[in-house]
Formats: sequence, C-alpha cells, structure tokens
Amino acid sequence: MNIEEIGEFGLIERLTKDFAPQNKTTIKGVGDDCAVMDFGEKQVVATTDMLLEGVHFDLTYVPLKHLGYKSAMVNISDVCAMNAKPTQMLVSLGVSSRFGVEQLEEFYAGLYLACEKAGVDVVGGDTCASLNGLSISITCMGEVEKGKAVLRNGAKPNDLICVTGDLGAAYMGLQLLEREKKVFESQKDPDFQPDFAGKEYIIERQLKPEACIDTVKFLKEKNVVPTAMMDVSDGLSSELMHICKESGVGCRVYENKIPIDYVTASMAEEFNMNLTTVALNGGEDYELLFTVPLSEYDKVKGLEGIHVIGHVTDASEGARLVTRDGAEIELKAQGWKAF
Amino acid sequence: MNIEEIGEFGLIERLTKDFAPQNKTTIKGVGDDCAVMDFGEKQVVATTDMLLEGVHFDLTYVPLKHLGYKSAMVNISDVCAMNAKPTQMLVSLGVSSRFGVEQLEEFYAGLYLACEKAGVDVVGGDTCASLNGLSISITCMGEVEKGKAVLRNGAKPNDLICVTGDLGAAYMGLQLLEREKKVFESQKDPDFQPDFAGKEYIIERQLKPEACIDTVKFLKEKNVVPTAMMDVSDGLSSELMHICKESGVGCRVYENKIPIDYVTASMAEEFNMNLTTVALNGGEDYELLFTVPLSEYDKVKGLEGIHVIGHVTDASEGARLVTRDGAEIELKAQGWKAF
Repeated sequence: MNIEEIGEFGLIERLTKDFAPQNKTTIKGVGDDCAVMDFGEKQVVATTDMLLEGVHFDLTYVPLKHLGYKSAMVNISDVCAMNAKPTQMLVSLGVSSRFGVEQLEEFYAGLYLACEKAGVDVVGGDTCASLNGLSISITCMGEVEKGKAVLRNGAKPNDLICVTGDLGAAYMGLQLLEREKKVFESQKDPDFQPDFAGKEYIIERQLKPEACIDTVKFLKEKNVVPTAMMDVSDGLSSELMHICKESGVGCRVYENKIPIDYVTASMAEEFNMNLTTVALNGGEDYELLFTVPLSEYDKVKGLEGIHVIGHVTDASEGARLVTRDGAEIELKAQGWKAF
Repeated sequence: MNIEEIGEFGLIERLTKDFAPQNKTTIKGVGDDCAVMDFGEKQVVATTDMLLEGVHFDLTYVPLKHLGYKSAMVNISDVCAMNAKPTQMLVSLGVSSRFGVEQLEEFYAGLYLACEKAGVDVVGGDTCASLNGLSISITCMGEVEKGKAVLRNGAKPNDLICVTGDLGAAYMGLQLLEREKKVFESQKDPDFQPDFAGKEYIIERQLKPEACIDTVKFLKEKNVVPTAMMDVSDGLSSELMHICKESGVGCRVYENKIPIDYVTASMAEEFNMNLTTVALNGGEDYELLFTVPLSEYDKVKGLEGIHVIGHVTDASEGARLVTRDGAEIELKAQGWKAF
C-alpha cells in the first residue's frame, strides 16, 4: 500500500495502534505534541523532529545558522505546546562530505542561540556521515508540574479558542523565497541579489521562527491551565481538527478574528492566493493554539498578542469556519503534507 | 576544515565545548552513553542514534524487521550502559517513495519486539518523506535510582575490567554478508542463494544484536555498582580508551582473556584477518564493558558470560594490551569511523 493513500496521521495510527504502554511512568504516549512521563516530583515531556535536506529545508536560501536556530525552536515549540518548560535537547546530524567543520559550527551557533533563549541544555546527540546532504534529528525534553501538562484532549463546549501572534506569514515567506530562488536561477547576472525590502517580517517568520516561551510563562503567572493546547506547525485548520477529534468536540472559528499581518496579506495578494486559506493552512507559524474556559477570559486577555478566534461547540455541530459574510463552511485539514 | 581531519569525537568536542548546561536538572551532558537528568525521585537517562541507509545499513541483506529490532536495541544498549532500566522510546523515520506501508509495518514489528523484550514504551516520534532511502533516528530514555547511574569516569587503579559475552562476531558477520552480497551481484544465476550454514551466530550478532538488559538486572540484584561502564559499540579498544580518558587512568588488558566465539575465529582465519584486531576494533558487539573494585569480584563472577579481561592502572602506565607472548603494546582506538 502506498503511504500517500493513508497519509502521515493514518500511517502513525496504523503503526502504533497495537502497542500499548507498559510502564507506569508513561502518562501519555503517541498522539500529542509531546509524550508525557512521570519520573517523580515533576512530569517530563519529550518530542522529536526529523528535518531532511531537500524535503524540509533548502540550503540555497536557508543559512545554516538560521537552520540550527529553527531546528531547535520547532522542538522547543512542541514542549511549550504541552505547557512545559523546555530543559534538555539531544541533537543528531547526518552530514555529507560537502560540509566542513566551519559549516557545522554555523549550524550549532544558531542552535545554541535558540537554546540559550529558551534555557535549554544540549545534553547529547549523534554525529554521523550521510550519503545525501544534511539530516537533522532533534529531541527536546521539558518539565512541567504534575497535572499541569496540557494535552489536546481537554477542550469543552463553550471554551474560548485562542491563538497567539499571527498566522500565514511563514508560509508566505516560503513562497517568496521559492520565487526569488527561481528568479535567481534564471538570471544570467551572477551578482543578482533578490530584494526583500519591506518583506523582512515574513522572511524572518519562515527562517527564524520563535517558540511561544513567554506565553507559557504568562499562563503560569496568571495560574491559567488551558483545557487543550498545541502549536500551529501544520496549519490552524489541521490543528483545530486535532483538538476537536481528541477532545470529542466541535468548533466555530470566525474568519474575521484570524490574526494576519499586513505583509502576509499583501504578499498573498501579490501571489493571487486566498488569504484565509493561507492563514488556515499555511503552517510553520509555531504560534500556540489553546482553549480556556469562558471564566478565564479576563486573565488571558492581558496576554500580548492573544486573539480569541472562536469557541468550542458540541461535536455534533462539526468544525466550522464562519466567514466574513456569515456563511458557515466545514474546516478541512489540508495542513502540511508530509508525503 | 574537513571533518575527517578531526574525526567524530574531535568534532563533537569542538561543537560542544563552549556550551555549559544551565539547568539544575541536567546532571551529565554530552560525553557518555546517555545524558543524565534529575527530575525528582529517579534519575532519567536519554540517548539518541541516527541510522542512515547506505551508511549504517544495507537493505540488500538487512531485512526491515531485523533493522527495526536492531535500531531499537542499539539505543536500549546505551541506556543499559548507564546501569539504567530502559523505559520510553521516540522513533523518527524519513521514508522515500519506494517504501510502502507494509514495509514500515515490518520495521515496526521488529522494533516493537525489541521494545517488548526490554520493557520499553514507544511514546512518540516523527514520520516524514525522504528523498533518499530510509533515515532512522531513535531516542531512548531510561530510569535509574539516584546515584546509581554509571558514567565512564569512575574507574580507579586496581579495578577489574569486565566484559560480557564475546567480541568481534558482529564485525565478522558484516564481512560475511558483504562478501556474499558481492558474490550474489556477480552471479548470473538469479536463484543463487548464499549459504550461511554454520555461520548463523555471527550473522545474528550483526543483524539482531541484543542489549545486556540481564546484566543490568544482575548487577542490581547483587547490589554491585560498577565504577565505570559503557557498551561496546565502536570496538573494545576505542571504548577502553574512552574510560581511561574520562577516568584519568590507564589499563592492562590481556589478549588471551578477550572472549571470542569459535565461529568468529574461523571466519577471521578464512578472511585472513588478525583475530585480536577483529575483537579489539570490530564494533557493534553491544556487550557491556565495565570496571568494578577488586572487592566485588566474588559478586560479579556469578554473572553468566562475564569475563575479567584486565585491570585498571595508573594513567602514567598508559592503555596497553598484554599479548599472548607477554609483550605490551599500546592500544589504539581504531574503532568505527563515522566519517
């Protein structure tokens, strides 16, 4: 059977469904941003991500230092999405012969920068030869007080749906980089340089994303524990549907509440793309999507950059987007296609 | 600078030397079989390994089920090498389009078999597309009582040097598989099948290694905590030198005490290879190498398959092999070349 037929999530379900955890230290296994373990006073979360050259990144326009930074941040983001504090990281690199020591130092410089910002220790890893380009695998661990880890499965009808920052920018940044790469390749002038003036924001969102470390701190200070949370890596639509499925609920999200930066909007127009589709399905935003009881609204509204984009409903009402003109359309998890 | 010039360990040292752990939960970072964290009642260890097609394995002669088994076991072995009980695993796969769902199920069947044997829960991972073959990255975690994690740095002069099982078999198994692959490729008869009769042991040692889970249990039962321990993955010689360097000691190892199976010996003869070189540098044995105070000898000698191969000396005496004819030669860490 072709993997494309069942997709990434279908494949994971098929490969993991018959294997039940045996250890009492395992609190939550496959199926969330992180696994959750309980080794004593605090709970431990762990996540891992594989990034392969040519699939997840293109070194034509991704500087190695940025790649190191992003590789670390996307894992740190998964830890934040559990309401946990990131603490340790393991870094594995498969490196082909075209990379020298200085280039790996560039990668690590970016990685360390992200780790320092997040307070994460690099505690181990593996470095090996690769036949084809650069392979990166990172595992990030974090700690969270017992009972405070937030999974995807606790959203209740009438909860508010919140998202941080803005959406779709990283995706438009990628479109711009890909376009300029094509222009560059077709140029005869070897000194041609793409002009990103005024577009720095979306380029940075793509090349140097930031995990929502401060959001987790803020929630802790305000003593708010979301009922469900995940990071927006595959696209808002896909993540909303994960929360609905895991929590056994539906949702109403309002198109006019979805936060979008004006550079994202103008680029979508330039590319003749539907802006809402970009914001719903773009992915790689690494913002936090979470649900809180209505009663917590007064506490969360003080969080900078927080947006209430809708509310949780009964499962029978489905997962729907309320458009600007009041129509309701079914959300589709177009998301990011891993295969 | 070319990575080959400084080697894998030189590269790791260069990339990690300026980054000191900040979290009080980080007990031991880069530089042992596993990192060690302290999250409460128990300590947690974590290790990660990357395995790339064409570099670490050849699917011409490695069945996917065996590959899954081995991928899990080599990480479980690193956890055992910390004197810890393996508990959780994260599994990342990068998969090219030539793999179907059934093949990944084969891989997972082997992986689960190893995990069940070791009592390990698969709690997460990442599955993504790859342009070139199969990329595997596994992270294994384990738990150990506080103060019982065994690093490489505690060996003391006069400690006994012990190794489990036998050495060099996995390497000779690899030589045999590689030879038969060449014969197979040069055959005109499409039905040609290599004949491994009588060689099953070394083939199995290569394709389906076992971590020393029972050794760790035995040591716990006998209340023996080794002063230093690691698993033999790169070769005995390389591992001995790691322990000597980390512990600031020297060693004397006796050629005639190094355990070697007779199939390994006969294959080495067939290949016209020096048997001691094979046993010292072969790698992939996944046996445990550890040091214990002389006073613990009576306890450890009851362990099945245990061999005392030498003793720890003062650093000034160097790391030496005492040959069968009584000569002393300097150990060289030929080991496994990652680059």
